[in-house]
Amino acid sequence: MTLEFDLIARYFTRTTRQTLLGVGDDSALIALLPGMELAISADMLVAGTHFFADAAPYTIGWKSLAVNVSDMAAMGAQPKWATLALALPEVNEPWLAAFSCGFFACADAFNIDLIGGDTTRGPLTISVQIMGEVPVGRAIKRSGAKVGDGVWVSGRLGDAALALAHLQHQIVLPDDLRACCEDALHAPMPRVALGLALQGVANSAIDISDGLLADLGHILACSGVGAIVQARLIPHVQHPEALRLALTGGDDYELCFTVPADLYTRVIEIGEQLGLQLSCIGEIVAEPGVVVKNECGEALSFGRAGYDHFG
Amino acid sequence: MTLEFDLIARYFTRTTRQTLLGVGDDSALIALLPGMELAISADMLVAGTHFFADAAPYTIGWKSLAVNVSDMAAMGAQPKWATLALALPEVNEPWLAAFSCGFFACADAFNIDLIGGDTTRGPLTISVQIMGEVPVGRAIKRSGAKVGDGVWVSGRLGDAALALAHLQHQIVLPDDLRACCEDALHAPMPRVALGLALQGVANSAIDISDGLLADLGHILACSGVGAIVQARLIPHVQHPEALRLALTGGDDYELCFTVPADLYTRVIEIGEQLGLQLSCIGEIVAEPGVVVKNECGEALSFGRAGYDHFG
Repeated sequence: MTLEFDLIARYFTRTTRQTLLGVGDDSALIALLPGMELAISADMLVAGTHFFADAAPYTIGWKSLAVNVSDMAAMGAQPKWATLALALPEVNEPWLAAFSCGFFACADAFNIDLIGGDTTRGPLTISVQIMGEVPVGRAIKRSGAKVGDGVWVSGRLGDAALALAHLQHQIVLPDDLRACCEDALHAPMPRVALGLALQGVANSAIDISDGLLADLGHILACSGVGAIVQARLIPHVQHPEALRLALTGGDDYELCFTVPADLYTRVIEIGEQLGLQLSCIGEIVAEPGVVVKNECGEALSFGRAGYDHFG
Repeated sequence: MTLEFDLIARYFTRTTRQTLLGVGDDSALIALLPGMELAISADMLVAGTHFFADAAPYTIGWKSLAVNVSDMAAMGAQPKWATLALALPEVNEPWLAAFSCGFFACADAFNIDLIGGDTTRGPLTISVQIMGEVPVGRAIKRSGAKVGDGVWVSGRLGDAALALAHLQHQIVLPDDLRACCEDALHAPMPRVALGLALQGVANSAIDISDGLLADLGHILACSGVGAIVQARLIPHVQHPEALRLALTGGDDYELCFTVPADLYTRVIEIGEQLGLQLSCIGEIVAEPGVVVKNECGEALSFGRAGYDHFG
C-alpha cells in the first residue's frame, strides 16, 4: 500500500454513524432524512494566513473543523458529514496523529462523520467541506432581516482577537483573562444548538468569523437594511482594546442574528435552556450601513470592519 | 466590498440550474430528487505537484473540475453540484478570469452548479468537492468485482502520460500523436454517460487517475480478488513507451470496470450508443494481485504501479 493511502487509512478512516458508504471508494454515499434539505459549506485554511505553521496540530485539527461547523450553526442546520483535503509538506506522523486527534475530537463533539477527502504533498493547506441537514424551508438565511428586528449576539466577542494580539505582543492581557481568551482562540465552540433553536425564530443569522461589523454588514447587504448598534450592549471582557476587537477582531464563531420584537421572550428562553448568554445589541433600521453609538448617542468610528485576505 | 468578496462575485458567482440557495450565504442549500442518494468526492490540486504553476489557467480550471467529475462517473452518479476553494499567492485577474472560464466550461459541459467555496491568500492550491445523485442502491462500487468478470476499460490509455513525458523531454512524440496526447493531458473528458449506463451492468468501477495497474489494484483489494490482464488488448497509441504508460502513467480519466460475462453484449451496445471504444482487457480471478501477460502467456513486469505523493 502506498504511503499516501496508508496515511488515510491510519489517521483519517473511522467508523461512521450515519453514512451509507464512507472513505475508501471513488466517492462517499449519504442519504438525507425525509423532509430535509442539505446545507453545504467549504473553507480553506492556509498555514501562515489562518494559523501559525508551528501552532499545536491538535488545535489546528479542532479549529479547521469547528470554523466550518460554525457555518452550519449560522444556517440553523444540523452538521452531519465532512470531507477533509490536506496538503502536507512532508510526512510528519506525530503531527498528523495530533491533528487528526483534534479534528475527530470536534467531529465527535458534534456527531459528524468524516466521509472523504484527499491527502497530497504541498505547502500546509487544509480544506474542509461540511454538510448538514435542515428541514425544508427552515434554513436561516442572511437575507431575511426586517426593519424593527433586534440584533442579537451569542456569548462574548473579542476574546480570540485579544488572545491573538497578546501572542503577537501588541497588547498585554492580565493573567485572569489570558486562559479564557486563548481557549476562544484555539478551541472555539460553534453554536449548533443555538442555530437549531433559532429555526422559526430568527429572521437572519451569520456566524462571526471576520468581525461583528463586517459580518453584520453581510446580513444588512443581503437584506437591504441597516443597523444601529449600542456599544455599551456589546458583550466583552474588561480591557482597553476589548470593544474595538469585539467589533472588528473576528475569529469569534458566535452567532449574530436578528429577531422580531414579539419573539424576544423566546430568545431569552432559548438562552436559559442552553445556558448561553444572548445579548440584544441593537436594531435593524431602513437606512443602509451600521452605526455604532456610545451612551450619549454619538456615532463611533472604527477602522477596518473585518479581515480582508487581499486588502 | 472587500477585494476577496469582489473576486468571488466577479469570477465565481453564476446563475444556478438546480440549486435552492447558491453562493452568497453561510452555506448553500440543495434538495435531492426522491429515491436518490448523494455521492460526494473531494480532490486537492497543488501547483508543482498536480499541474505546472505556469500552465494555462484555462486548462487548470477545466481539469480541476474534470478530475472530480471523473470520480462521479466511476460511481455511476450524475454530477450536479460543486464547491471550489482556492488559495492564490496574489490577485492576478487575467489568470482568474481564464481559470474561471475553464472551470465553468467544464461545469457547463456537465450541467454542474458551482454552489460555494472559499478564496484566500496562499500558495496556489485548488480544492474541489463534487456532489452528484445516484438512485438508491445503484452506485457502482470498487468492492463488487466477482471472479469470472471481464475487466474493461474505456477509450485509450497512456495518451496524457505520453504528452507529459514529451513536455518533460523524456521522450519524443511524433507530430501526428502530439495533438491528441496533449488534449488528453489538458482537457480530459470524464466518462459520465458511460458511468450512468453501467448502473446495473458493471459489478465494479474506478476512474484511472493514478494508473491502470494501481487503480485496478484498488478494485481488486476492495473486492478480495485478482486479475489477469492481456497486454495486447490494452488500447493505446503506437509508441515504444505507450504500453508502459498505458499501464502505469495515469492521468487518463477513463473508466476501468468489471462486468459478468453474460452482460458483454450489453457493454458492446453501450459503447456503440455512446460512440466510445470499450475494450475487454482481461478477467477477474481468485488469486490476488494483477498479472500482465504477453502473447506467449508470460508474465510481464512493470516498475511502479502508480503515482504515490509521498513515495
